[in-house]
Amino acid sequence: MHRTRVRVVEDALDANNTIARANREDFDRHGVTVVNLMSAPGAGKTSLLERVLAEPLDGVQVGVLEGDVQGSLDADRLATLHVPVVQLNTGSGFGGECHLDANMVRSALPALRLAELDLLVIENVGNLVCPAEFRIGEDARAMVCSVTEGEDKPLKYPLMFRACELVLVNKVDLLPHLEFDLDKLLHHLSHVNPDAEVLPLSARTGEGIDRWRDWLISAAERGERGRRRRREEALV
Amino acid sequence: MHRTRVRVVEDALDANNTIARANREDFDRHGVTVVNLMSAPGAGKTSLLERVLAEPLDGVQVGVLEGDVQGSLDADRLATLHVPVVQLNTGSGFGGECHLDANMVRSALPALRLAELDLLVIENVGNLVCPAEFRIGEDARAMVCSVTEGEDKPLKYPLMFRACELVLVNKVDLLPHLEFDLDKLLHHLSHVNPDAEVLPLSARTGEGIDRWRDWLISAAERGERGRRRRREEALV
Repeated sequence: MHRTRVRVVEDALDANNTIARANREDFDRHGVTVVNLMSAPGAGKTSLLERVLAEPLDGVQVGVLEGDVQGSLDADRLATLHVPVVQLNTGSGFGGECHLDANMVRSALPALRLAELDLLVIENVGNLVCPAEFRIGEDARAMVCSVTEGEDKPLKYPLMFRACELVLVNKVDLLPHLEFDLDKLLHHLSHVNPDAEVLPLSARTGEGIDRWRDWLISAAERGERGRRRRREEALV
Repeated sequence: MHRTRVRVVEDALDANNTIARANREDFDRHGVTVVNLMSAPGAGKTSLLERVLAEPLDGVQVGVLEGDVQGSLDADRLATLHVPVVQLNTGSGFGGECHLDANMVRSALPALRLAELDLLVIENVGNLVCPAEFRIGEDARAMVCSVTEGEDKPLKYPLMFRACELVLVNKVDLLPHLEFDLDKLLHHLSHVNPDAEVLPLSARTGEGIDRWRDWLISAAERGERGRRRRREEALV
């Protein structure tokens, strides 16, 4: 019985990976780099996007796909920014899905004008567990971890911290008012993912937003190099 | 295909409800009231338990079941409190389950000395989506919502806020340092769950902990009345 259950889960992930590859091929064809942005609820994904997309990104054309269980609050916030925003709700089914999967993203592709984009940021559902388990066709994964959540989160949600190449440590403006030890967080993070890049920043004060902006621009450049490599490999 | 998928989900929930009822019968037999405590990661479930269980609860014997994807950090924190704590990890399977279900709780029952308890608090996995979908045999559901998470959470995760009869609004000591409008949160909450009881409090300063303590004591009393009612109904 247990063995059967594992097989079902593996099949579901395999189907997801197949669709993720199809998404990736579509993104490649249009020259779009995709960043999967994840975090716990309320860590500040949308606020960090509002901040960094308030100004043009050095000629990089950005679009946002907003994943939420229900509602369009985040998409509405970003709609004032003059970047294209598409809302994707996971709320059909029983209580709503707690993550985006490749097929949900695929269903949103027709609404995205991929030909006009260089960079697509997909804001996942707020959750530190399941979003890390589902590839959606992205080039890079980034996560937001707020200092108000405590230093232990890399140890409690290791898959998420391991899956991401960038950890945005948000709300550092609150550090003077918290008993939070940034070194302890970094120590725990180095334990589960020594290669992660870490950017302490604050969506509220703007501290560190320039480095978040630089990272997005360089992600688009790395995405372009990855596409070139995949094209060359396909020719061999 | 879609219809098949829905049926599978319904079957899974139906099996869960069957096991939840079996858990409930075991809790009833031992006179134990069970509170399912939920929140986003880092909202302060463990800190609020540390605070409220630092002193005996007016003769109410409390135990804690700690749900985590991985590790025993929270159980270790609570182990200093002289209340029995059992750790339940959901990390087997692929990336770990993002919630407790009735069968996981059932697997922990042999480790819980139910005969010695009046009140069992089950700390669920940090997640605002799936834990609300799975009954585990509890009498009452409570959630923690931190003021650092923003006012919009009841609208974005309505099932969770609707499922709980108590909303603990934690970290109010940080209010002077945030742009957070408590009235706005209460307005959104009243939209999705007008009957919810709301307790603003702070695990850090201890503000409001007396009311959290009173609520737990009265939950044990309500649980006892519920068990009596169920016994009488069974005799009719």
